[in-house]
Amino acid sequence: MSFTLGEISRLLQGRLHGDPGTVIRGAAINRDAVAGQLTLADSEKAIAKLADCGASAVLIAKGLSTGLMPSIEVDDVTSAFARAVELFRPRIREAHQGVSQQAHVDPTARLGDRVTIFPGAYVGPQVTIENDVTLHPGVCVMAGSRIGARTTIFANAVLYEGTEVGTDVLIHANAVLGAYGFGYDSRSGRHLLSPQSGYVRIENQVEIGAGTTIDRGTYGPTVIGEGSKLDDQVMVAHNCRIGRHNLLCSQVGIAGSCTTGDYVVMAGQVGIGDHVDIGSRTILGAKAGVMGNIEGDAIYVGIPATPHREQMQKQAAWAKLPEMRKEFKALQKEVELLRRRLEASGQRVDAPRSDAA
Amino acid sequence: MSFTLGEISRLLQGRLHGDPGTVIRGAAINRDAVAGQLTLADSEKAIAKLADCGASAVLIAKGLSTGLMPSIEVDDVTSAFARAVELFRPRIREAHQGVSQQAHVDPTARLGDRVTIFPGAYVGPQVTIENDVTLHPGVCVMAGSRIGARTTIFANAVLYEGTEVGTDVLIHANAVLGAYGFGYDSRSGRHLLSPQSGYVRIENQVEIGAGTTIDRGTYGPTVIGEGSKLDDQVMVAHNCRIGRHNLLCSQVGIAGSCTTGDYVVMAGQVGIGDHVDIGSRTILGAKAGVMGNIEGDAIYVGIPATPHREQMQKQAAWAKLPEMRKEFKALQKEVELLRRRLEASGQRVDAPRSDAA
Amino acid sequence: MSFTLGEISRLLQGRLHGDPGTVIRGAAINRDAVAGQLTLADSEKAIAKLADCGASAVLIAKGLSTGLMPSIEVDDVTSAFARAVELFRPRIREAHQGVSQQAHVDPTARLGDRVTIFPGAYVGPQVTIENDVTLHPGVCVMAGSRIGARTTIFANAVLYEGTEVGTDVLIHANAVLGAYGFGYDSRSGRHLLSPQSGYVRIENQVEIGAGTTIDRGTYGPTVIGEGSKLDDQVMVAHNCRIGRHNLLCSQVGIAGSCTTGDYVVMAGQVGIGDHVDIGSRTILGAKAGVMGNIEGDAIYVGIPATPHREQMQKQAAWAKLPEMRKEFKALQKEVELLRRRLEASGQRVDAPRSDAA
Repeated sequence: MSFTLGEISRLLQGRLHGDPGTVIRGAAINRDAVAGQLTLADSEKAIAKLADCGASAVLIAKGLSTGLMPSIEVDDVTSAFARAVELFRPRIREAHQGVSQQAHVDPTARLGDRVTIFPGAYVGPQVTIENDVTLHPGVCVMAGSRIGARTTIFANAVLYEGTEVGTDVLIHANAVLGAYGFGYDSRSGRHLLSPQSGYVRIENQVEIGAGTTIDRGTYGPTVIGEGSKLDDQVMVAHNCRIGRHNLLCSQVGIAGSCTTGDYVVMAGQVGIGDHVDIGSRTILGAKAGVMGNIEGDAIYVGIPATPHREQMQKQAAWAKLPEMRKEFKALQKEVELLRRRLEASGQRVDAPRSDAA
Repeated sequence: MSFTLGEISRLLQGRLHGDPGTVIRGAAINRDAVAGQLTLADSEKAIAKLADCGASAVLIAKGLSTGLMPSIEVDDVTSAFARAVELFRPRIREAHQGVSQQAHVDPTARLGDRVTIFPGAYVGPQVTIENDVTLHPGVCVMAGSRIGARTTIFANAVLYEGTEVGTDVLIHANAVLGAYGFGYDSRSGRHLLSPQSGYVRIENQVEIGAGTTIDRGTYGPTVIGEGSKLDDQVMVAHNCRIGRHNLLCSQVGIAGSCTTGDYVVMAGQVGIGDHVDIGSRTILGAKAGVMGNIEGDAIYVGIPATPHREQMQKQAAWAKLPEMRKEFKALQKEVELLRRRLEASGQRVDAPRSDAA
Repeated sequence: MSFTLGEISRLLQGRLHGDPGTVIRGAAINRDAVAGQLTLADSEKAIAKLADCGASAVLIAKGLSTGLMPSIEVDDVTSAFARAVELFRPRIREAHQGVSQQAHVDPTARLGDRVTIFPGAYVGPQVTIENDVTLHPGVCVMAGSRIGARTTIFANAVLYEGTEVGTDVLIHANAVLGAYGFGYDSRSGRHLLSPQSGYVRIENQVEIGAGTTIDRGTYGPTVIGEGSKLDDQVMVAHNCRIGRHNLLCSQVGIAGSCTTGDYVVMAGQVGIGDHVDIGSRTILGAKAGVMGNIEGDAIYVGIPATPHREQMQKQAAWAKLPEMRKEFKALQKEVELLRRRLEASGQRVDAPRSDAA
């Protein structure tokens, strides 16, 4: 499959600089692009890297330019490049529409308009599904759950009973919402499960990654606030209240009853102890371990998590620790030597004095 | 929906202190409760926190009291509060009973009485399922597995062939028992999978969290001991023997051929290297990394894990490391100064002596 | 069930040392074996450990010997022992063959010969499945994906649209390939999902563990190179290029746009920051956190990851940190004392001099 640069420019409504007859046979990012392909540059930095790129043409963000190869200038370079990629690798869409005969939908469930339910999905009693929702194969929505308009749930995700999902939510494959919280009372040497009367509430425009697990609250909701995005394999324990527009990267684990403010960012593999409150706009570096409250508007890193600046000082000291240890041993010896010499010299000094006496 | 405090007290068989006519419209924990709602207090500490709570009444554990708001005293405050919560948010139960026509049950499988198998579940050849077992939608139980009485397996969990599950076990959604162990022999630059003749054995009263994975043994079983509870996204590798009544929190990872004693507790994101033996009643702090055996009856934290007391000393020293580094530099200078002064003074002291010689 | 040692030796085509009439009733590894059972020893080290083993006979690798119990010498001791294990615990195989009527296969999908599709599996439009592929129950293969010959996909694994899987690949239960990458542009306080035009490419002989997630590239592929093995609960983010014959242990997390060379090994719970390049034959210790490029042919450990030798020095210094702190305080006092004595002695020394002046 091939297009000329002129054809591509017209399709993307761009402004072409260079030969419109240039033949393009694919589209790839700088790292991967080879001769005959179109690449993209979305910043001056990306323009500078074009010198090492094998591409034959480049899609550039408005206001950028390059003399290295023909270019097409567009308003929204990432969407335009996505369209270019799909020119060469047309997206094949799932053909299925409506409610599959091979799905199981309880007769007491209420379904809105234009709901798509794939084969193998399960919808339990008294579930409410609003307009334009899509449930992929193997999705399980248990009794009494509610799913807001335009939400998409990918294959084999599981919503336990009473889960509340807002509008425009994306839930990826194998995510689990509403499993039991890890709360036990230990009596007579046995661990007895706490009440599990709560549920999970996902607010509007939230996105939940593949394999992510969010446990139900003990008596009430575990909440993921509006616009927050959770990556794959994130764990949010029972009773947590995640604020709005948080970004929780992959393999983050948050123990029970924590709260976060708005615009909190946690990098990969961060862990938060239970009952911790984290203020708005806190940024936690990768692998940070948080055991106490953080007020917000700060960057914390390390285990235990400390303000970034302090941690950098500690890291620097840590990096020099073996050297410092050697120097310390040398200093100990030197002081010992000084002491001996002082004692020796002291006797000599003292001697005249006692002589003088 | 609303009830009077008197009605609630009668339902919960409690002892009412205050106006029985108080109207209650919901039940929530201290943090969330607002006017018109019932909250709970299960300890003196919780009683003290009622001052900040918006609730109009409180359910209290026997022997506690408060003058802040009407109260209902009950024997088992957590169960009673769970019942109160469900008064206002009645639990909707899955209506399904028996073996669904939309499930696939191999004709050679043996099913006990009152077994519930939801649509989309799969039960392979020669599987044995005892009385009162529930398999939720999409559960896959492969050939030759055995599931004990009263066990519940939630949606889309997978049991590979030959898995043995005890009685009164809970397995949450998307857990995987019996996938291949990560054992390879490297020959001629290729990694060749070890034998996978083993299986997984889950003893009675175990609970397995959502997305948790337990790999089969190489030749024999990987075992989770009676009464142990595993949170979501825990990993237990091939040949491990987890003891009885362990608590393994979320995202714990245990490498191959480890053993644990009884009543071991691992906090979130702990990692254990392979072939490590951990004694009974060991407690491992969050994110601890264990590379060697631990005798038991001890608290270990940090990477590498060390006894809690030692680690606290190290943490204290670590916290003061940048300060210590500064002080160390100052001390080096002072010693240098002393050395020079001593040398200076030494020469003067020596001078008379050599004169004297 | 029992066999004589002579019968077992003939079945395994081994060379028997000892009484062929010895009755054997089971097979287990050294740790578990009891009287009447066969165990194995694959090295001199394993031979040495037989003294503590309760087994009645041992299967040994060619060239080894023991006087402790009857033995059978075989060429490939691990495969032979796996066969012995299965003598006593015969493997029950899934009986299903062909394409189940309870699976959903889109009419536009192309299926090779001897393809097995279990009940509850879903195959979308224009999917291509080559010869001898097995899809277990609940597997979801979305539109346009391609699966190479002899590949097995276990229950409830999900392949998003356009996933490319090579030949002889194993994908374990609940793995997810091709979910959206965690890339967002933040505009007006909202996080807007990046283009998701890419896909996942799994090369030949790759093995993917249970619950592992591999996100699609932004515009092109996320690649797992030939022969690489990923354990359970591994996370590989969008645009990564994992090289050939890598071993990524459980709970490893690799952020976006990383590359690895060949024969890279990452132990459990390692984390790699985004846009990091890791050279061939790099070994990363458990829980290592990598934020910058690594050239290769080296062992790195710790957070942040540093060469193993350096880290050991730091660990040693770290272990002695509390002691060093005490010694440091003592040294500070001693220097202070020396200073005072020097000042004191200095005055005395000076005194004669000023006298002399």
